[in-house]
Amino acid sequence: MKILVSNDDGYLATGINVLAEALSAVGQVTVVAPDRNRSGASNSLTLDTPLRIHQTGERRYCVEGTPTDSVHAAITGLLDEQSDMVVSGINEGANLGDDVLYSGTVAAAMEGRFLGLPAIAVSLVLGEGQHYQTAARVVIELLARMRAEPLPADTILNVNVPDRPYEALTGFQATRLGHRKRAEALVRDTDPRGRPLYWIGPAGSEEDAGPGTDFHAVRAGAVSITPLQVDLTRYAALDQIAGWLDSA
Amino acid sequence: MKILVSNDDGYLATGINVLAEALSAVGQVTVVAPDRNRSGASNSLTLDTPLRIHQTGERRYCVEGTPTDSVHAAITGLLDEQSDMVVSGINEGANLGDDVLYSGTVAAAMEGRFLGLPAIAVSLVLGEGQHYQTAARVVIELLARMRAEPLPADTILNVNVPDRPYEALTGFQATRLGHRKRAEALVRDTDPRGRPLYWIGPAGSEEDAGPGTDFHAVRAGAVSITPLQVDLTRYAALDQIAGWLDSA
Amino acid sequence: MKILVSNDDGYLATGINVLAEALSAVGQVTVVAPDRNRSGASNSLTLDTPLRIHQTGERRYCVEGTPTDSVHAAITGLLDEQSDMVVSGINEGANLGDDVLYSGTVAAAMEGRFLGLPAIAVSLVLGEGQHYQTAARVVIELLARMRAEPLPADTILNVNVPDRPYEALTGFQATRLGHRKRAEALVRDTDPRGRPLYWIGPAGSEEDAGPGTDFHAVRAGAVSITPLQVDLTRYAALDQIAGWLDSA
Amino acid sequence: MKILVSNDDGYLATGINVLAEALSAVGQVTVVAPDRNRSGASNSLTLDTPLRIHQTGERRYCVEGTPTDSVHAAITGLLDEQSDMVVSGINEGANLGDDVLYSGTVAAAMEGRFLGLPAIAVSLVLGEGQHYQTAARVVIELLARMRAEPLPADTILNVNVPDRPYEALTGFQATRLGHRKRAEALVRDTDPRGRPLYWIGPAGSEEDAGPGTDFHAVRAGAVSITPLQVDLTRYAALDQIAGWLDSA
Repeated sequence: MKILVSNDDGYLATGINVLAEALSAVGQVTVVAPDRNRSGASNSLTLDTPLRIHQTGERRYCVEGTPTDSVHAAITGLLDEQSDMVVSGINEGANLGDDVLYSGTVAAAMEGRFLGLPAIAVSLVLGEGQHYQTAARVVIELLARMRAEPLPADTILNVNVPDRPYEALTGFQATRLGHRKRAEALVRDTDPRGRPLYWIGPAGSEEDAGPGTDFHAVRAGAVSITPLQVDLTRYAALDQIAGWLDSA
Repeated sequence: MKILVSNDDGYLATGINVLAEALSAVGQVTVVAPDRNRSGASNSLTLDTPLRIHQTGERRYCVEGTPTDSVHAAITGLLDEQSDMVVSGINEGANLGDDVLYSGTVAAAMEGRFLGLPAIAVSLVLGEGQHYQTAARVVIELLARMRAEPLPADTILNVNVPDRPYEALTGFQATRLGHRKRAEALVRDTDPRGRPLYWIGPAGSEEDAGPGTDFHAVRAGAVSITPLQVDLTRYAALDQIAGWLDSA
Repeated sequence: MKILVSNDDGYLATGINVLAEALSAVGQVTVVAPDRNRSGASNSLTLDTPLRIHQTGERRYCVEGTPTDSVHAAITGLLDEQSDMVVSGINEGANLGDDVLYSGTVAAAMEGRFLGLPAIAVSLVLGEGQHYQTAARVVIELLARMRAEPLPADTILNVNVPDRPYEALTGFQATRLGHRKRAEALVRDTDPRGRPLYWIGPAGSEEDAGPGTDFHAVRAGAVSITPLQVDLTRYAALDQIAGWLDSA
Repeated sequence: MKILVSNDDGYLATGINVLAEALSAVGQVTVVAPDRNRSGASNSLTLDTPLRIHQTGERRYCVEGTPTDSVHAAITGLLDEQSDMVVSGINEGANLGDDVLYSGTVAAAMEGRFLGLPAIAVSLVLGEGQHYQTAARVVIELLARMRAEPLPADTILNVNVPDRPYEALTGFQATRLGHRKRAEALVRDTDPRGRPLYWIGPAGSEEDAGPGTDFHAVRAGAVSITPLQVDLTRYAALDQIAGWLDSA
């Protein structure tokens, strides 16, 4: 199995290196990841400028671009061989609920949707430690289950792992995305030259986070596995819109 | 009605100015948009650096940031008054099928999901002319229908308008997103100093583009209206994953 | 006379627009300037990515790049006609002493060193008002004197104008650059997500600022005119180095 | 001796690593350098956004910023101990004549002008090999001579080393900067989406490059050592300007 590994924290982050090493036990790993932290990059693609891509070792590349640029480049010609799947992470921090919209970790996985196996985005819900090894082992586990019982290819799994030893996990749960409240207020500040500037405020607190949600699972110490779709169509609203158009 | 207008082509683009002027006939318009073309920015949020925001006129702001930054800032404290809805566009070019994942136009609309009315992303399917006025009139039409028969607030409408006179439109269709093939190959090049660089290749051609899709509607000369969801959970796969976990 | 106008505050700044309008009385003005504030850009040239250049009006261009990029592009092929000289400014704030090393305003003028007439960088020493008109009139004055009594072409004039009505100026002085103390300390801060960041501290205070220096002239209410050289060779040290090499 | 090492090719470049290792034989080396290639950055200082600085090892830091940012940060508070001097390089390619205006390598050295010993910028004139070791040995040589016979502190040495074994060098020469012709024409191109873009053209060819210049020395196989000044005042023109003002 040829596994393409990427992330949004940058190719020097602890998470991606723990992940790449763990996955090399089950497949041939190629790392193509941003050269800098690009958290919050979402699915952004760099269209206005060319990309600089540097080979930093055998099957190791860093890209002066976004997570999506990295995976896009890898599967459209940078690499000689086609990968079978993308694993993105291990992100330093959770990607729960609305976070996935902005997440570069999830976006890198989405960009792997054209490959043969479901893509996985994996995040460590930082808290009690730096248990990246737990998250790596969870991914290995999921790959084994996938092999035994295949999922449809056009699926992305968003996996959040509590920050604790593997033995202390309380289980694995299939979850839906919860929701956060609107983000905290914009932070106004001034730079040392007295000019105004603004920081995007922290993410909102949990709002829809009860049983069945990803928030709830990780709070209970379980690995949260949320299947995501790349097709954003709200099918349930199609009839409503159609009727609405007819009534005009 | 207080309407927040944004886009991803930048605040100087023709599309946003035609849109803002048209909407000022039906509501109070505030423009908060990127200072540069940020096509392909998706939902990226600028978290690592502060934003510079410049007021360029009455209720007119440009942001040295992304479309998502612009709308996020506007609804979390930049503006004194809360807006009722976001209209994003008029994008210079279509946003069909997989394009919506990368689109800054659609992302700006998504960021308005917390407001009272459904957000609208509107794009002109460039072809025969520069009929931005047609797209503006389509938006005014949709607002009137919304008022008559409300849609749920947490809905985004992705609207693509053929580039022709309003009278030449063949109708309005409720559509699902079609799909494109994988993108064209990465374009390798060298800069004038002889160093290698890479351009992201053009979007793939249409693959799933039959009746019922957005591709099909605009090809037929109709306005395509696709309801989008912000919740990416693939609910249909939850049972499958749950069973899959149990079988382990 | 064909005058190329640029700056580092961006093409929308008050200073460049006052300057362009004033100069149009004495020559044909073309504006090629950065699209954003690029203060502190020094002579930086964008070599790693291509430039986007937008025409915003007749003989008006904005460049997604630095001041040096703007003038460089203008004189190496962007414009059909060759300019006779570059005037850069009116900068919002002084460029005195060591400031010139970092100044994009001065750099834009330096980039015009290959043209037929001496380049001028002009800055308003902000203080009591917004007397950009005073600075514009000073430039017109200097051009008239230049015409009467030419200076060598490979000269850059760094002009700093006190922020007061033209009538309140106490004269024009030929000055040398003074010097500042080392810059203030780096400013450590944390972003709203708790991560460390650093701001470059404010410029150091005046140290070598007595009679004959640019600092002294503007403090006395006079226009300071400092001739600058583009050749950084310290000729006086050549013999010393040569002897030093021989002694080895 | 505490030596601060920086460059403009980025902290992963071969040149800076060869240099840092060589210098550790004669002093305590601290590396503070850009995280990416920032050739052409000149003396640009990042004033509009904060800097992210990452510690990558003991006395090793990379800065998401320019060479000038790197040295500026290092000497205004990033490091606990004050450095005695800055050595910048080994640049991948020559910095001759007008190049020094744009060079980030030279700028990093200039930013060290406030320290106790003369700063050195060192570049390898790429050609026949990758003889970074030769350039490193040249720097060690120069430091020994400096110690024996001190130069004034406010001096920058711009050193260009032919790309050959140390034994094949034909000597060391004290040189003045030569000059290049105007740069080659702007390169017009279009991106894969058909939109126009421009690349800064290659540097101009040599024009003033005879005996005594840096161009001439390296062509003859000798190390070129050019003393540079930070004070850009063209003292010889002061009287002329003064007379010119009086004549008005």
